[in-house]
Amino acid sequence: MPDNHAPDTTRPPVTVLGLGLMGTALAAAFLRAGHPTTVWNRTASKTGPLVAQGAIPADTPAEAIAASPLTVVCLTTYDDVTAVLTPLTATLAGRTLVNVTNGTPVQARKSAAWAEEHGIAYVDGGIMAVPQMIATPAAYVLYSGSQEAYDRHRTTLSALGGTRWTGTDAGLAALYDLSLLTGMYGMVMGVAQSYALVRSEGISAQDFAPLLEDWLNAMTAGIVPRTAEAVDSGRHLTDVSSIAANQAAFPNLLHTFADQGVRPDLFEPMRQLLDHALSEGHAGDGLSRLVELLAEPR
Amino acid sequence: MPDNHAPDTTRPPVTVLGLGLMGTALAAAFLRAGHPTTVWNRTASKTGPLVAQGAIPADTPAEAIAASPLTVVCLTTYDDVTAVLTPLTATLAGRTLVNVTNGTPVQARKSAAWAEEHGIAYVDGGIMAVPQMIATPAAYVLYSGSQEAYDRHRTTLSALGGTRWTGTDAGLAALYDLSLLTGMYGMVMGVAQSYALVRSEGISAQDFAPLLEDWLNAMTAGIVPRTAEAVDSGRHLTDVSSIAANQAAFPNLLHTFADQGVRPDLFEPMRQLLDHALSEGHAGDGLSRLVELLAEPR
Ligand SMILES: NC(=O)c1ccc[n+]([C@@H]2O[C@H](COP(=O)([O-])OP(=O)(O)OC[C@H]3O[C@@H](n4cnc5c(N)ncnc54)[C@H](OP(=O)(O)O)[C@@H]3O)[C@@H](O)[C@H]2O)c1
Ligand SMILES: NC(=O)c1ccc[n+]([C@@H]2O[C@H](COP(=O)([O-])OP(=O)(O)OC[C@H]3O[C@@H](n4cnc5c(N)ncnc54)[C@H](OP(=O)(O)O)[C@@H]3O)[C@@H](O)[C@H]2O)c1
Repeated sequence: MPDNHAPDTTRPPVTVLGLGLMGTALAAAFLRAGHPTTVWNRTASKTGPLVAQGAIPADTPAEAIAASPLTVVCLTTYDDVTAVLTPLTATLAGRTLVNVTNGTPVQARKSAAWAEEHGIAYVDGGIMAVPQMIATPAAYVLYSGSQEAYDRHRTTLSALGGTRWTGTDAGLAALYDLSLLTGMYGMVMGVAQSYALVRSEGISAQDFAPLLEDWLNAMTAGIVPRTAEAVDSGRHLTDVSSIAANQAAFPNLLHTFADQGVRPDLFEPMRQLLDHALSEGHAGDGLSRLVELLAEPR
Repeated sequence: MPDNHAPDTTRPPVTVLGLGLMGTALAAAFLRAGHPTTVWNRTASKTGPLVAQGAIPADTPAEAIAASPLTVVCLTTYDDVTAVLTPLTATLAGRTLVNVTNGTPVQARKSAAWAEEHGIAYVDGGIMAVPQMIATPAAYVLYSGSQEAYDRHRTTLSALGGTRWTGTDAGLAALYDLSLLTGMYGMVMGVAQSYALVRSEGISAQDFAPLLEDWLNAMTAGIVPRTAEAVDSGRHLTDVSSIAANQAAFPNLLHTFADQGVRPDLFEPMRQLLDHALSEGHAGDGLSRLVELLAEPR
């Protein structure tokens, strides 16, 4: 695919504010899909490579917003978005703002309320990809907020990867996004601790990796749907792997960490949670019971 | 498949000590594969169903061990194994003992030393399956210790599922086993916390499950091999997802837990570890750096 593209005027124009790692990948994807793409970044020098690919540079965010019916904003935090956009409500009025900056559901709902007040159609987005994955089949973006605005711009947005609508509550994309990240961070903790153990015996992590990957895939395939079923039905009794069995086995793990000189920090709270589950009388339940206990006030 | 099998005398006999959930599944698998199978359990009544399937009940563990060149022992803990087998070294001498009781590498090495002292060929095993999975293609058992004994009985042991040799250090099967369990527990923590978040908005866990499963599979496929490569090479610099970016994003997660009424306990240590990594000057490294930090004494 050539680096330089003549803008296809049959595709609707789009504006991207913020050309960090992610914003640059988003703008490049819109360009490759043939959208006339206007870009702005606080540090102007970052527009260079995109202009070379056919992007239209804007001197101010107001000028950039005015160029398109749809603006995608991708800054570091919601506070940065507020700082840039608060003075520009008049320019944004009647247009669509898609905010793919990472934040919390509460922040997203606040932005949606602000946008509504000013006649701005607001869609919140959660990008489930790293910049290198944008516009590949593995990437997708979660959306929530104004469904009308989403429907109107969905084809344009699909230049970035898959699109998944989560609902008209603007906080939902962030909630789903953070819930998926949460799942990933748990997996990362497990993988890091697992490699630390293996390395404590001088075993090559790469030798162990295929075993670990197969095992995690098999466990994920069992645990993710089974836990969901138990959580939705409130029926936690198991004949596969009980709280009692896990609570009894857990000290083995922690002793092994100590024997091998691996810090137990990441796994101490799980031991406490299992102890708590047992003391609350959930010995015969599966690990799905932990979902309920996490929602409990201490 | 009929429940009752005439023992196939061309298959070598095997003895199983301990008929809990797992021991019962192991003995049933040996029977189904045509091995004359002698069984013993402290609580004698548990032999009933296996005897109905063709197993030979023994009144004492000594009698059971004497019936076969190979004894598989599956009790709750290593201490239970020690309690049962310490008086029986004379009977075990010259035979093979495969201990698939869960324990630590240190415990396994102690058992191996004890066995060697008494002329018992010792193999330690780590069962990577729940009882329901035994003898299915998804189940496998990790082995370490006497390679000669393992090679001699491998065909018999393959009745239980896949066999994976990890090395002559008897502690290795337990180390691999616990390392895989560690990876799984991390994933379980992530999944439990993720569902707790989703449920805090009244979203059905089963609606969310396919998204979570796909996401975890995609992340596992990327993170497990990439982390192994970084750990083995000691090169942790990344252009995908840096310590700095993760450390900056983590408070978002914890705020969201608080906003949604979900306890942050399981994720607090990860925040501390990311903070620690940053303060140690690893801002530009990937999460693989955490593996090194877990091996550090505090
Ligand atoms: N990278 C990823 O893998 C990834 C994945 C999913 C989601 N995200 C999210 O996408 C967003 C951007 O991430 P990134 O990786 O592109 O970060 P980045 O490379 O650090 O870029 C940050 C961008 O925000 C701009 N910015 C920050 N504060 C600003 C302010 N007060 N006023 C104007 N512009 C400001 C920066 O402008 P300057 O160039 O002038 O500094 C830069 O364009 C974040 O919310 C991130 O969580 C990233
Ligand atoms: N279940 C699983 O999913 C699973 C998976 C992998 C590994 N494992 C490991 O397999 C081993 C057994 O697990 P399980 O699920 O079969 O447990 P279980 O159902 O609780 O059975 C425990 C067995 O150990 C016997 N036992 C305990 N203490 C004893 C003692 N002092 N003297 C004699 N016998 C004693 C019990 O005999 P009585 O019947 O007389 O009480 C029973 O046969 C454990 O180390 C476990 O970690 C289990």
